[in-house]
Amino acid sequence: MPQFLEYVSSRRAVTQNSTEQSTFHPHLLPHHHRHHCHHNRLCHHARPRHLNHQEAGMHSAQVTPCLCPLFSCQWEGHLEVVVPHLRQIHRIDILQGAEIVFLATDMHLPAPADWIIMHSCLGHHFLLVLRKQERHEGHPQFFATMMLIGTPTQADCFTYRLELNRNHRRLKWEATPRSVLECVDSVITDGDCLVLNTSLAQLFSDNGSLAIGIAITATEVGATDAEM
Amino acid sequence: MPQFLEYVSSRRAVTQNSTEQSTFHPHLLPHHHRHHCHHNRLCHHARPRHLNHQEAGMHSAQVTPCLCPLFSCQWEGHLEVVVPHLRQIHRIDILQGAEIVFLATDMHLPAPADWIIMHSCLGHHFLLVLRKQERHEGHPQFFATMMLIGTPTQADCFTYRLELNRNHRRLKWEATPRSVLECVDSVITDGDCLVLNTSLAQLFSDNGSLAIGIAITATEVGATDAEM
Repeated sequence: MPQFLEYVSSRRAVTQNSTEQSTFHPHLLPHHHRHHCHHNRLCHHARPRHLNHQEAGMHSAQVTPCLCPLFSCQWEGHLEVVVPHLRQIHRIDILQGAEIVFLATDMHLPAPADWIIMHSCLGHHFLLVLRKQERHEGHPQFFATMMLIGTPTQADCFTYRLELNRNHRRLKWEATPRSVLECVDSVITDGDCLVLNTSLAQLFSDNGSLAIGIAITATEVGATDAEM
Repeated sequence: MPQFLEYVSSRRAVTQNSTEQSTFHPHLLPHHHRHHCHHNRLCHHARPRHLNHQEAGMHSAQVTPCLCPLFSCQWEGHLEVVVPHLRQIHRIDILQGAEIVFLATDMHLPAPADWIIMHSCLGHHFLLVLRKQERHEGHPQFFATMMLIGTPTQADCFTYRLELNRNHRRLKWEATPRSVLECVDSVITDGDCLVLNTSLAQLFSDNGSLAIGIAITATEVGATDAEM
């Protein structure tokens, strides 16, 4: 499959160019914030419904109000200023290009922890969230998903792919990104994302760092699952 | 990506031709057998070491003694008669072809349960094991792995790919098959395989059935991870 080999080698080139830029330490979340979330789950699950209702009644996505997608932040603002908020307040960097590699370091740190990066391509900003969380006590897992900083309707126009490749193993996850107007916590709680147990995360890690290949494509109109 | 579309459509054709042949109900494992396994974990972990030692001292793989790879069976015999044993005693069918689709039905049945199929290609027999198991009480997961009915050295010459594709989501797992001389239970306990939580399994299922695309390729000599 020569096409595939070309894809891999071009991706490797991206890695070498952007390693410094795309290496991030985790954003550690205080435990009391995590507990606050679990005790107010209804609040989190209510958010998307509330926002979808608002969105349906508006003609411009630019003035849709929303919350900061990061777990530990109480900020509220319009969708159009989410990106400056993430950059200025949370100092989250932006990677450019259709295919990038995100290197999450210090994977051994205890849960809960988030690794976050913004990805700019195809005229939009996407947010990768990699979360280490203990859904079963003593058994941390890693959850990775991609959110579009845009509306659910806009998100439906894209497909994202996350790829891990190491130690003679390869794991790929492809799906439609969710909108940041939806709740990243519910996506992860539902497990509708790339899920890694600790042993798989170790197999794919190199010296405590996990390289995640990320690609975004525009979904063709009327595309079926087979054509995704 | 026209190459990819061709691949998908050829795979679909296989599905249509082999649906009847490749639809299997799970092999249910009695609970007391499962408990027996957990209480004797040392025994299971000791098996590969014991067999590798034997294998190292032998010049022909044909006379390597081994146990039946199925969990609930106490049969012991030579590697060369594992396939007739699986066919005659366990009535496990064999699917032919480099790329096949295995349809596991009744995914809702309670854990523990195994779905098993043999896959014949490239001059060898492979065994797909899909297991539903509760590693955390009340949270069943699905584990899928591929074993070569051959020695570890022979297994290193192949790569297998398992693919799920439905509901605008796609999950692919690629790895080197393990030898049936190793213990399938330890592979699954280690989580070094395709792992699905219940919600993901439901997203990929259609009316309680999970279609798993399976492909085997010969690994090139000296192939790196990038070329896998």
